[in-house]
Amino acid sequence: MSETQRTFDRKTKPRGSLGVLEELAVRIGALQQVTVPVTPECAIVVAAADHGVAAEGVSAYPPEVTAQMVANFVAGGAAINVLTREVGARLVVVDAGVVTPSAPGVVRSLRFGAGTASITEGPAMERETAVRAVDAGTALARELVGDGIGLIGVGEMGIGNTTAASALCAALLPADPPEVCGRGTGLDDEGLARKVAAVGRALEMNRVDPSDPLGVLATLGGFEIALLVGVILGCRAERVPVVLDGFITGAAALVAARLEPAAVEAMIAAHRSPEPGHALLLDELGLEPLLDLRLRLGEGTGAALALPIVRGALALLNEMASFDEAGVTDAGR
Amino acid sequence: MSETQRTFDRKTKPRGSLGVLEELAVRIGALQQVTVPVTPECAIVVAAADHGVAAEGVSAYPPEVTAQMVANFVAGGAAINVLTREVGARLVVVDAGVVTPSAPGVVRSLRFGAGTASITEGPAMERETAVRAVDAGTALARELVGDGIGLIGVGEMGIGNTTAASALCAALLPADPPEVCGRGTGLDDEGLARKVAAVGRALEMNRVDPSDPLGVLATLGGFEIALLVGVILGCRAERVPVVLDGFITGAAALVAARLEPAAVEAMIAAHRSPEPGHALLLDELGLEPLLDLRLRLGEGTGAALALPIVRGALALLNEMASFDEAGVTDAGR
Repeated sequence: MSETQRTFDRKTKPRGSLGVLEELAVRIGALQQVTVPVTPECAIVVAAADHGVAAEGVSAYPPEVTAQMVANFVAGGAAINVLTREVGARLVVVDAGVVTPSAPGVVRSLRFGAGTASITEGPAMERETAVRAVDAGTALARELVGDGIGLIGVGEMGIGNTTAASALCAALLPADPPEVCGRGTGLDDEGLARKVAAVGRALEMNRVDPSDPLGVLATLGGFEIALLVGVILGCRAERVPVVLDGFITGAAALVAARLEPAAVEAMIAAHRSPEPGHALLLDELGLEPLLDLRLRLGEGTGAALALPIVRGALALLNEMASFDEAGVTDAGR
Repeated sequence: MSETQRTFDRKTKPRGSLGVLEELAVRIGALQQVTVPVTPECAIVVAAADHGVAAEGVSAYPPEVTAQMVANFVAGGAAINVLTREVGARLVVVDAGVVTPSAPGVVRSLRFGAGTASITEGPAMERETAVRAVDAGTALARELVGDGIGLIGVGEMGIGNTTAASALCAALLPADPPEVCGRGTGLDDEGLARKVAAVGRALEMNRVDPSDPLGVLATLGGFEIALLVGVILGCRAERVPVVLDGFITGAAALVAARLEPAAVEAMIAAHRSPEPGHALLLDELGLEPLLDLRLRLGEGTGAALALPIVRGALALLNEMASFDEAGVTDAGR
């Protein structure tokens, strides 16, 4: 039994009665190699980018919505703005490659192109571009940690990016396209069929090698996904827990875990999305999500809702009185 | 479709993509008969009392722990203190009948005795006492709402109170004692057998009439449970949502629903506890819990963790930009 669990067992509550919260604290203690991790300041990193494959009718929304939503993040009117205000987390919006760049200022410009090439016709990006995007994400995580952030949630915005995430999962798990493709933001049956076909064509056109996760990422991924792979790896390197949102950030986590298996130690799954590929990749990563609220919005909204649970677990470990301190009889098992 | 749902459908997100959060907002809109309920200030009411049946070895902890934990609430060292601080909720601790009264001050003294009589030997309290406790709870809810609180979570502390809650469920659902009795704070097999036997004796000794919920409450309940029945009824009367914690507050909710079926409209189930009776009573009330984190601590800890989700749902409804406002193309279904 870990020292963290022993510390929790001395707190004024029945042993194990905080369930998953105790398990979270124990995992974070192991990640940070300390008995009582501090209650952290939180940030959500939302990376946005466009996808060439969006031109093929694989989303319920047109591609220009990516840039429009980045403008909405800047104006403070999107769901993730509301939720980060509610939970007291810093919001970091990154333009990783939107077709129409946003005005500099609120948005962090770490652009690797003006949208990816369509994965049905060839690779999404050069291998070297994927390396640069991953490195930029790792540097961003390090910078946030240097700024005092101790818990990072990841989210994304990019019309077409459930198709990229589905292709990554199909290649890496591996799985057949129909097993990993869902309705995304609200596809009808025809749209879903187009998406399954697009993922199939992408896998046929690009013969990827699943044992080369960086090659798979460059070929089938997106700029925001590559950046988030780096954020996740940076969190593991800095020993800071990273809260995954839904399917797309989960696909980034799968790539990160293939690049660096120890990265899973830093991962916390916020919620289970209705996208069929999400359950498969969570199983593959061995992660049990904290929430199951049928969220399918992205932007890091599920991660934001999970932050109070993770922070709460550590606050309990830090702040609860022990049986001795409180003079409470410890007769429990 | 309600006006609340229509308002959510104009927000910058795919229709229905906030899942359970949209359903919560729609339910609260219906309860309050407004389209956009305000984002509420929150409080947790923790009611504490002792139980005569605790002398019969039905808990892993000795009865004096109730008063010790109330002192811990006063000192700020219990789990519910930490979590209400974390989520920014007011904590209201009520002594509804602890054997050793706490010093006046932090704790609200609404005492209906020095612990109940053992339900294995006769009724827990007089019917008239139960009426007074329910009325006091209703008045407390009204007072909090008058004070500006718009979302109330309920919690409890009372060694032996899962036995009382099990007896209430067995009588009201109805169900056999083994179906509703669990390990509470950590009973071993022998303790669980004693608990099942105690509930069986209580039902045999007291021939209750399930169609008389107030009589069942007085006979098998506890002072804190009766007070919480009143808080729940007061929330419904004031049209303020009430967030139920685990099994014991769920038993209070079951009594409240039998007294006033419309009370269910105000109820939100925070989490699913491992107590077997909890799932049965949630089904009976038609409530789907927000969290499933294997919590079994009580004190309102699950309710506190659910508050940011409920508040978040209403903040999203209030603060998100619409497609028109943000200039985002609404092409979704």
